[in-house]
Order: sequence, then structure tokens, then C-alpha cells
Amino acid sequence: MNDLLNEVAWNENGLVPAIAQDYKTGQVLMLAWMNRDALQQTIERKQAVYWSRSRQRLWHKGESSGHIQRIEEISIDCDADAVLMKVEQIGGIACHTGRAHCFFRRLSDTGWQNAEPVVKDPSEIYAKKP
Amino acid sequence: MNDLLNEVAWNENGLVPAIAQDYKTGQVLMLAWMNRDALQQTIERKQAVYWSRSRQRLWHKGESSGHIQRIEEISIDCDADAVLMKVEQIGGIACHTGRAHCFFRRLSDTGWQNAEPVVKDPSEIYAKKP
Repeated sequence: MNDLLNEVAWNENGLVPAIAQDYKTGQVLMLAWMNRDALQQTIERKQAVYWSRSRQRLWHKGESSGHIQRIEEISIDCDADAVLMKVEQIGGIACHTGRAHCFFRRLSDTGWQNAEPVVKDPSEIYAKKP
Repeated sequence: MNDLLNEVAWNENGLVPAIAQDYKTGQVLMLAWMNRDALQQTIERKQAVYWSRSRQRLWHKGESSGHIQRIEEISIDCDADAVLMKVEQIGGIACHTGRAHCFFRRLSDTGWQNAEPVVKDPSEIYAKKP
């Protein structure tokens, strides 16, 4: 595992951008960041684990929403400074806004326009369990 | 245009990661970086223009290889800190190694394995014109 992780070109903050792509549809779901521990856990658990820069802690995607990303395939790029994961998006919702994916703000003649429906209300996704 | 660019959450270096995806096949071709000028030129020219961190200058993708990326669609994500472009990859080669895309090092039981053929020898791609 150490050899694998050593080959990654971590940036000055020890991070690398990681893209999650739906393994069936090819839709790019989101881009988030991984540190060494996150990539190691992703590989070991076969589920996406990111480093949350805002919360400064490991973020097991789906830990509160249940919307886990099961890993089908992981690749790094030619310079080893980006990660691409093909995943099964459990629940069909990758975005915290309740949309299927995060790249829903599409450029149009009138600016960035929301181009994807909200599938589920975020207050339902993140509702406290009784 | 300024309004569009002001909505992007540029990082502390004034950059944002930009993903290029083949608009027909859905293959993720590469991840590179854009500054404000690069995104502006990308939008205006309808061709991908990045900021080369190694060369510290604007990089019109395909400027030396001819392997331009024609823009079909541009989106930003929920946090506006990542760009996704659907592109037509002219010449069918996005990677400087002569491969169709950059994410060719796939995780296997024996490490990161090259999982994509070289389509064209890089020395041919970047040969000086007479």
C-alpha cells in the first residue's frame, strides 16, 4: 500500500483532486480532495473516502446521507496528480443539494444556470435519525 | 463576462481545477487548471485554455500538437470550485504521452498498471514543423 501511495504526486498540502464518475452512465458526479489516509481507506474499503477541507477531517462519502460511492475502478493520471474513480452512486444522489451530481450549473447566454432538478430535499437527506 | 468569472471560487493561487470529458463517449480525458484569463479565453474561443502551473503561462491545449479541445458545454459545481467541460478532442489524443486520455494508470493487485495503449509516439505529436 505504501508503494501505491508514494507514487501519487501529493500537492503542497498533501492533497490530490479526486473525480467520481458514475461507472454506468459516465456522468461526472463530483470533484473532491483526498489526502494519503483518504486514498488508503478508499482502496481498502472500496468506497470513496475524501478529505474534507472545510471540516479538516476524513469524510466517508455517504456517512450521514447513506449515499455511499462504491468503487468499481481507480486510476491516476500521467502526472499522478489527479485521481479518477468509477463508482456506483448509492441512492443516485451525489450532491449535498439533493441533485444527482454536483456539476449542475451550466454556462448559458445568461450566465450559470441550474440545469438539473433537485431529486430529494436536502433536509430529508440529512434528517436526524430518531 | 466579469460576472461569470466572479462567481467562480478561485483558490488561494487564483486557480480552479478543470476536467475535460469527451462529449460523446463520456471518457474523462484529463484534469488541468485554469486561472481567470484561461476560463475567459476558454469561453470566448470555445476551445480549452488552461493555466500551465509548470510553465506559468496560459496553455491553449493543442497549440503545439494540434490536439485542440472544442467546447460543447461548460459547467461549474455546487461550490463553484471545479469546472467540467464536455469537449470534442480533436485528433483523439488528450495526453502528452500519446494516449487517448491521461487516466491510464489503473489500480490493480500489482499496483498502478498502464491500461491504455499509446496511440501515437509523442515524438511525432510534438515534432517540429519544417
